[in-house]
Amino acid sequence: MGHELAALPVAVDAMGGDRAPSEIVAGARRVSEEQGIAVVLVGPPDALGEVGGLPVIPASEVIGMDEDPAHGVRRKKDSSLVRTAEAVRDGRAMAMVSAGNTGATMGSALLRMGRLPHVHRPAIATPVPDLDRPWPTVFLDAGANAECSAPMLVQFAQMGAAYARTRYGVERPRVALLSIGEEESKGTPLVKETHGLLVADRGTATGFDFVGNVEGRDFFEDKADVVVTDGFTGNVTLKTLEGSMRFLVGALMGILGKPEVKEAADALLPHLVPLAAALDPDNVGGAMLLGVDGVCVISHGSSSAEAMVNAISVAHDLALAGLVDELASAVAPA
Amino acid sequence: MGHELAALPVAVDAMGGDRAPSEIVAGARRVSEEQGIAVVLVGPPDALGEVGGLPVIPASEVIGMDEDPAHGVRRKKDSSLVRTAEAVRDGRAMAMVSAGNTGATMGSALLRMGRLPHVHRPAIATPVPDLDRPWPTVFLDAGANAECSAPMLVQFAQMGAAYARTRYGVERPRVALLSIGEEESKGTPLVKETHGLLVADRGTATGFDFVGNVEGRDFFEDKADVVVTDGFTGNVTLKTLEGSMRFLVGALMGILGKPEVKEAADALLPHLVPLAAALDPDNVGGAMLLGVDGVCVISHGSSSAEAMVNAISVAHDLALAGLVDELASAVAPA
Repeated sequence: MGHELAALPVAVDAMGGDRAPSEIVAGARRVSEEQGIAVVLVGPPDALGEVGGLPVIPASEVIGMDEDPAHGVRRKKDSSLVRTAEAVRDGRAMAMVSAGNTGATMGSALLRMGRLPHVHRPAIATPVPDLDRPWPTVFLDAGANAECSAPMLVQFAQMGAAYARTRYGVERPRVALLSIGEEESKGTPLVKETHGLLVADRGTATGFDFVGNVEGRDFFEDKADVVVTDGFTGNVTLKTLEGSMRFLVGALMGILGKPEVKEAADALLPHLVPLAAALDPDNVGGAMLLGVDGVCVISHGSSSAEAMVNAISVAHDLALAGLVDELASAVAPA
Repeated sequence: MGHELAALPVAVDAMGGDRAPSEIVAGARRVSEEQGIAVVLVGPPDALGEVGGLPVIPASEVIGMDEDPAHGVRRKKDSSLVRTAEAVRDGRAMAMVSAGNTGATMGSALLRMGRLPHVHRPAIATPVPDLDRPWPTVFLDAGANAECSAPMLVQFAQMGAAYARTRYGVERPRVALLSIGEEESKGTPLVKETHGLLVADRGTATGFDFVGNVEGRDFFEDKADVVVTDGFTGNVTLKTLEGSMRFLVGALMGILGKPEVKEAADALLPHLVPLAAALDPDNVGGAMLLGVDGVCVISHGSSSAEAMVNAISVAHDLALAGLVDELASAVAPA
């Protein structure tokens, strides 16, 4: 990493995702044509259809969306996912993007790129939209580590802050810990221990402000730029958020679809579109695996070409912005 | 408990909640007048205003909404909350209702009524609306126990199923465990151990079906009648659900309030009201503390008179339906 990055393409796992390879290839072609971003596709050349002149790194195998991640990464050494991670490791790509099996993406990135020095465990950072301001809340760990220690959570705070700064330009991010009350006496032993460590540090060394605990209802309330939790709670919380959004939007669409309110629905639709767009996961560019030695964007399994355009563009920008160096500095001992 | 219950009133903590005592007293009066349910108010007689002939158990102290629960229950022996729980313990009331400090309500109920035999720890069960069917999902533990063991979670499954049966008439409830994937290999060690215990039991003894793990996105998907988790995850999840609902409803109201869409908004409003009503926490009757020797309804801190009418009515019906005996049977060793 680090040498002549700007000359390298973004490596894209062409076989990852529910809509691979067609939507993945379409997104890669668009971002290359429209934004001039260099992309290399990874997958079986015969399976990719018309790639519009994009270079291809051949890979004969595919790790399925529901395949056991550890098994897939270990056994399918010529899979598109493993080869995508290898392209970054070998200095043939500046960053990787996959909409495939999340666990296998983490595993490939971790095993092929390796961890950054001093990082206990990588974490998945996901943006949660906050309409009160132009940047989302960085929420981690969204599911990489079901079990966490307090020192791991402290590193998630450090890495989350570095990510908020690098990606969203938040100069001195407010970092909060997810708990069941604002008081530091609230929560599990893990939360209480982490709270103590973050109070002692307060991010002085790594440039963030620890603002204490937040609760589940504080998402969307502009209380923090980064919210830290273990990967079990993070995954449950994020899926709960997605589920409730999908449920309410679905219920609303059901009402707007009634013939007797067609006129009213037509009048409202232009006003609803910006809200829907702000909440659409396709627009946020995917989750980031923080703590590995390379930029790794994990897109939604249902990613469309549009989602891939965003994900590839984000991967490209963050590689050039030096995200990996920022993360390495953030976790380095004082 | 158990003798001549039908002749007893429901004890209501008149000083509990952000809108106490006025809304609490108003709700108690209404449920008494409109539904003929006997109610006894507990609080300082001088502070309650016009009680409309309802009996009052005097109590000179109040435990504040933000007061440390353990401290409050221990020190304020003549508080409205502690006296409310004592009324049930002493056979002067069939059930208790409070919209006050949740921790202090649990503490008062636990210390004054005591645990049911064999119950490791009481849990808070909260209804989560599911518009696909007439009854909500029973979700527990919503925050009584930040730390849980697998045997505790198994009892939550047993008690949650007994509650779904008694309150909602679900003959053989489907019970699920909240995790980060459907596979039994997914989750924390606590979740995996609980999964194993529930698979071994499958609720045979206590009349429920264990349907495996569900994820945060499965709320509203009619996959289970009861969802079990530890009190930390439960509290975070529930507050996330509430926060996202409030956020989306607020965003929608902001759009509907624009002058240029007034006509469309007026046409849609009658269609939106049933959805809003179905999701309104005021209509669900509050959370239940399961595992203590008495019926204890914990209402939202912001409870209105309407919410109190529902909470008191639910407490009354469940006491008469023998909820406490059902819970005791559910956790009794085979």
